[in-house]
Amino acid sequence: MTKTVTVLSGLIRPLVEGRLPDWVEPRFFTTKDEAMAMAPEAEIGWFDMYDKDDMAETITAATRLKWLNSIYAGVDGMPLDLLAERGTVVTNGAGINAITIAEYVVMGMLTVAKGYREVVRAQDRREWLMDSPGKVELFGSKALLLGYGAIGKLIEERLKGFAVDVTIVRRSPPKDSGDPNTLTPDQWRAKLGDFDWVILAVPATPETDGMIGAAELAAMKPTATLVNIARGSVVDQDALVAALDAKQIAAAFLDVTTPEPLPADDALWSLDNAHVTMHLSGRAQDKMFVRSAQRFLENLDRWHKGEAVAPQVDLTLGY
Amino acid sequence: MTKTVTVLSGLIRPLVEGRLPDWVEPRFFTTKDEAMAMAPEAEIGWFDMYDKDDMAETITAATRLKWLNSIYAGVDGMPLDLLAERGTVVTNGAGINAITIAEYVVMGMLTVAKGYREVVRAQDRREWLMDSPGKVELFGSKALLLGYGAIGKLIEERLKGFAVDVTIVRRSPPKDSGDPNTLTPDQWRAKLGDFDWVILAVPATPETDGMIGAAELAAMKPTATLVNIARGSVVDQDALVAALDAKQIAAAFLDVTTPEPLPADDALWSLDNAHVTMHLSGRAQDKMFVRSAQRFLENLDRWHKGEAVAPQVDLTLGY
Repeated sequence: MTKTVTVLSGLIRPLVEGRLPDWVEPRFFTTKDEAMAMAPEAEIGWFDMYDKDDMAETITAATRLKWLNSIYAGVDGMPLDLLAERGTVVTNGAGINAITIAEYVVMGMLTVAKGYREVVRAQDRREWLMDSPGKVELFGSKALLLGYGAIGKLIEERLKGFAVDVTIVRRSPPKDSGDPNTLTPDQWRAKLGDFDWVILAVPATPETDGMIGAAELAAMKPTATLVNIARGSVVDQDALVAALDAKQIAAAFLDVTTPEPLPADDALWSLDNAHVTMHLSGRAQDKMFVRSAQRFLENLDRWHKGEAVAPQVDLTLGY
Repeated sequence: MTKTVTVLSGLIRPLVEGRLPDWVEPRFFTTKDEAMAMAPEAEIGWFDMYDKDDMAETITAATRLKWLNSIYAGVDGMPLDLLAERGTVVTNGAGINAITIAEYVVMGMLTVAKGYREVVRAQDRREWLMDSPGKVELFGSKALLLGYGAIGKLIEERLKGFAVDVTIVRRSPPKDSGDPNTLTPDQWRAKLGDFDWVILAVPATPETDGMIGAAELAAMKPTATLVNIARGSVVDQDALVAALDAKQIAAAFLDVTTPEPLPADDALWSLDNAHVTMHLSGRAQDKMFVRSAQRFLENLDRWHKGEAVAPQVDLTLGY
């Protein structure tokens, strides 16, 4: 039997070794050079690397690749056109991080609402505050949720437990539903002034690039908070810094920024209403690798039987 | 018509003035001395003061008092025996703060789970963390909720949105329910080792005094977190400091302490697994006075009609 050359990041090794089917010939890399050397023979690849350029280079070198897997939901660092041209199937980590990211969003909203960051700083000074630095309740507040994939759905579920009035944006809302809590992509901008929270959970695509700019920020309530757990590119960051500095909006909770890591001299670090969480939301869990490996093993079975692996990225849409 | 002398804290004045019925003769105090001077004539009183001893003294001087109201849920600073002996009706703020306190509990759990305090400190240093200081998910974790009043019920509701497995403790669970998520007061201690979170939302009574001591802390999982939004007296604080210092439990999120304010040299301030939030949970909202005033005005109508005011404190139980 000819085995299928499967090139995998060494980080995955402890989770899949001994569990791989016998038709798989696994090759594990621990450096970019090793990955580059193994890439040309790979039929199946799991090439996640911290440096997106290194990863793109490795994918480009993997000319025989039939199926590319990633632990991450976002595939914006991949050469999608090339993969489409080659007919490579791409599975991503959609949903793998969704739970912890949804939890992180609610944490962000609560900490901004209650001014919790000031409480942390006061404890560090051993100072007993006599009043709460934040006095906002989630209860009864209104949130606009942009992006209704795995993460968006879990955010909505959690916020409903707090009696937050959540409005979602969908390309095609149920016809004649008249549901005031569902807007189409051409409707939400005109309603921005209605919301206490604007939450970005969209994929990074040409369509969402810079979707929140100076005009959108100006349309938000001065008491509103922007939450971004999508990608830095979704927000015009210069416009955001200006809006925060002028208190045009109340606060921003930013898990993602442009660039990442954010340079030490960036203005965002020191704005008293910018909360920077260093793209940690998806990492704030210990089950990511376990879940992702489990899903990969199940997909290997499907692949071998000729069934569709899942979830597959639409290389045209980019998510 | 003889008017009913009603002595009220001046803090309430802007919220009730012009809205009081004509049978009420309002007298507002702004100092303890004024309150003490007005107390003997008061038939209805709203005597909340930051200093509980001052308040107890004022209540003691109010020998004609028929109805005592408070904005707070906890009445442990009041001379309950004396009030019972005099037959004074006591209404408290049960439920007024419940929403924000429940929100604060979830915030506390999330910030402990994700190590958010370290993220705040890193932002203050302008440092981009490469991994999350906390990797716990609420999803699928198990919480023991001690206290099932207005606050406890709202906590349960919110945690269920996160798929937390919540076990409550009730004096009389439905008979033969066999519900594994309901324990009686004589059952929970034996199960302490099952939970990732132990949440204290009980009233401060002789029964709950020191209910979490060295034995209970030793029975908890080493990965578990204690959350206290009840009263400092519910926990043996020396035992807690020892348990936190020895990493016998993972963390404590303490909205309440003994004493309050906590002295600057208290060990709790600097333990890296103690999160001190200075009894701010109920204050982290801007609707407390509005809600409390509204309820008081409704109760005045009931009082005048001879109907029962609500919610009434059971002076024997102390809540």
